[in-house]
Amino acid sequence: MQIAILSFFHYFTPMFKKRESIFEVEEGKFLAPKFDKDGLISVTTTDIKTSNVLMQGYMNEEALKKTIETKEAHYWSRSRNTLWQKGKTSGFVQKVIELRIDDDQDSLWMSVDIGDGASCHVGYKSCFYRSISLGPIKDTKEIELEFKEKKKKFDPEEIYKDQPNPTKL
Amino acid sequence: MQIAILSFFHYFTPMFKKRESIFEVEEGKFLAPKFDKDGLISVTTTDIKTSNVLMQGYMNEEALKKTIETKEAHYWSRSRNTLWQKGKTSGFVQKVIELRIDDDQDSLWMSVDIGDGASCHVGYKSCFYRSISLGPIKDTKEIELEFKEKKKKFDPEEIYKDQPNPTKL
Repeated sequence: MQIAILSFFHYFTPMFKKRESIFEVEEGKFLAPKFDKDGLISVTTTDIKTSNVLMQGYMNEEALKKTIETKEAHYWSRSRNTLWQKGKTSGFVQKVIELRIDDDQDSLWMSVDIGDGASCHVGYKSCFYRSISLGPIKDTKEIELEFKEKKKKFDPEEIYKDQPNPTKL
Repeated sequence: MQIAILSFFHYFTPMFKKRESIFEVEEGKFLAPKFDKDGLISVTTTDIKTSNVLMQGYMNEEALKKTIETKEAHYWSRSRNTLWQKGKTSGFVQKVIELRIDDDQDSLWMSVDIGDGASCHVGYKSCFYRSISLGPIKDTKEIELEFKEKKKKFDPEEIYKDQPNPTKL
């Protein structure tokens, strides 16, 4: 049933080119995104100023369309199961400078301007604030992380108040 | 059954900390990665020299462990269903300079040195060689892509010969 609905939707959304040839997908000049079995496509978001990776999330068709049209980042929240305009609560809107797609069109790279803001719900600028120790792994010792951001950009308790934490165990 | 095997495996892999508290996952100093229902974690790979996103792929536990230990990028290929050391065929090995993990520890950011090589099986340096036109979408018109890399770094037919193309429709 889900397949029927998706096919129906695709039939009436010619803004996405049909994926009919690998050559067209890889070398073509038209957007033909591949959404996974949950209807999502991965997006990596980088800071246009520092080039750091800020976050990695997912879009569904609607989020991708809204992002293209409004030039403001929209995602699909898997933990909250809802469309989500980044910054709607925190005020840290992501202005889209460039949106790229990869060779087989199943992954997006979005460069954004966040001004002096932040992108991580924990309060850091980037979600990737910790670095993994590289080298030999000892089976009896946990692998350590090093904090690369020392100071939070905002206090999440103040900004998000009593909203549930999106992190799941 | 799969759950039982995973739990069993986790029990004997103390190098990954158990995910027992959200505070520890977000603010802790130990690696506690979350693999999805297919046993995979997303990884975004950027070029240490240009900061461009080269590719976005996935690792399973083994690929992550091998990457940490050897400081060379290993992935799980979803299209070929196998562990995959990047560059084994093409020679374009990715040397890992830094490997970061995000707030809820379900996504990795890897900075790599590829020398003067390339990372895309189509022949471009980055898999993200095309940019999506932003702005109003017309329902009757396909969305255009602009090529940001004009010239391939290598000829894929020469390098990969008769290996099957990993791109799926």
